[in-house]
Amino acid sequence: MKYPASLALAALLATAAAPAPSAAPAATPKPPTLADIVAAAPASDWQRVDPQDVVLIDLANGRRAAFALAPAFAPAHVANIRGLIRAHWFDHGAVYRVQDNYVVQWGQNDDDKAPPEGLGQHLPAEYDRPAAGLAMTPLPYRDTFAPKVGYSGAFPAASDGGRAWMAHCYGIVGVARGLKPDTGSGGELYAVIGQSPRALDRNIALVGRMIDGFEHMTALPRGTGALGFYQKDEHPLAITRLVLAADLPAAERPAYEWLRPDSASFAKWLHLRANRHDDFFERPAGAIDLCNALPPVRVVAHR
Amino acid sequence: MKYPASLALAALLATAAAPAPSAAPAATPKPPTLADIVAAAPASDWQRVDPQDVVLIDLANGRRAAFALAPAFAPAHVANIRGLIRAHWFDHGAVYRVQDNYVVQWGQNDDDKAPPEGLGQHLPAEYDRPAAGLAMTPLPYRDTFAPKVGYSGAFPAASDGGRAWMAHCYGIVGVARGLKPDTGSGGELYAVIGQSPRALDRNIALVGRMIDGFEHMTALPRGTGALGFYQKDEHPLAITRLVLAADLPAAERPAYEWLRPDSASFAKWLHLRANRHDDFFERPAGAIDLCNALPPVRVVAHR
Repeated sequence: MKYPASLALAALLATAAAPAPSAAPAATPKPPTLADIVAAAPASDWQRVDPQDVVLIDLANGRRAAFALAPAFAPAHVANIRGLIRAHWFDHGAVYRVQDNYVVQWGQNDDDKAPPEGLGQHLPAEYDRPAAGLAMTPLPYRDTFAPKVGYSGAFPAASDGGRAWMAHCYGIVGVARGLKPDTGSGGELYAVIGQSPRALDRNIALVGRMIDGFEHMTALPRGTGALGFYQKDEHPLAITRLVLAADLPAAERPAYEWLRPDSASFAKWLHLRANRHDDFFERPAGAIDLCNALPPVRVVAHR
Repeated sequence: MKYPASLALAALLATAAAPAPSAAPAATPKPPTLADIVAAAPASDWQRVDPQDVVLIDLANGRRAAFALAPAFAPAHVANIRGLIRAHWFDHGAVYRVQDNYVVQWGQNDDDKAPPEGLGQHLPAEYDRPAAGLAMTPLPYRDTFAPKVGYSGAFPAASDGGRAWMAHCYGIVGVARGLKPDTGSGGELYAVIGQSPRALDRNIALVGRMIDGFEHMTALPRGTGALGFYQKDEHPLAITRLVLAADLPAAERPAYEWLRPDSASFAKWLHLRANRHDDFFERPAGAIDLCNALPPVRVVAHR
């Protein structure tokens, strides 16, 4: 079996199982792998995603995806999205745009369809926020786009010292909008499915991160219309509903945790991400990009 | 219609058509878009991909993808891949691995199947090459992984001054291999389908770039086995054949051109990629990542 070595993606949604004990200790123990570090992280290094922030996307093909909302970055948009979900705005909508190496977009693709009273207004341009008050664990490597980058909770963040914002990484969820000064309501959402389009940072409200089942959306056929919108003869995947985990009965409620970026386990994991020394690697990179190293997320109670 | 503005991806495979003439000149002409710049580039700014370097992937579902070989970066691997193609090694193979946000991999996924005599050997570790002799147009922005980055022909490149190498961007094609000192023969290939895994740079021989139909491979279902390999109950997409454009009758031969990175049109295009000022953008980034700005490629004679 030949491969490029996996870059920690196996750690995403890793189970909480401890590493298997060795039957006989090796003379020279192997250094821990990325998966070993994640598996060995103590409970105190993990933080539960608030069920009010867990959005489940039930697709008409029976699959489910999930994203975590980020109220620290876009509080008005997040509140409006919760309202839209509870008003069933997204139910019977669709994934109506898939542009290769760019975004998958969903909601109600009918500009004449009005969101419920009070939920369709254009919101403040939450493209960035004060850096003060946002806990951010720095990434100690150069970034092309921002003076400082790092992690805040489960999310990638950037800052110029005065302002801070979420970064457009793979799987980050944003609010589609029209031209300025339209800021979007949150009724149309997209997530990144390619090389991080960081040039969009601070131009769009980012509201969350995909944390489960994203492969059910990334593998959809690309739309052949302009910008990847599906054309009339193509078939968007219908959405059955969006629902907040908090609104499900406890027995049906999935729960997720992220590896806290301010934990010792994350620091160890991040260092190894930048300095791979396993049998596959000839030359460790000595650095890692913000979007290559999002904090691992795991399911702790399965749906 | 709401959207995040497209980042020049529409320029990929743009037709050679000139911009539509205005019926009535506007009082204040709009500045050119990315697509305008590509459409207006003179013939001298484009360079034909050598038909010996164009590999067509005919998939069993009737779709076709194509990649361009990069002999300047991995001459021995490229020569071996041409030999393997002409020996029909890839015919009736499959796309047997799709790992989300990482790679799609194809060839013969049977370690017991031996490549034709003389073509299965392990080759020199063409993970980098002397920087001297490689024409490289620099990208004037910070890079996380390398002291210098830029473009050489249609390919993204990096350098430390003494050595140079191709960078793992979306759509870049590499040679899958086992553990060291296995360097691969080129009989198993992969291409990047997510955030650029640049930590792999200089650890694998990179041999080309997808230039057409990649969406027929990126949208395949992700494998549920370890590292995205398909499991027994999953169905890899079969490959009918790989063929070099040079080996097709002239009438059936597609031809591609890339926008030369040392051209004035590319410089203008790249500057605008980093400094978007159209109606959608509130705040131009002032920079762009190497992997966000691969030289545009177009079809000049369609299959």
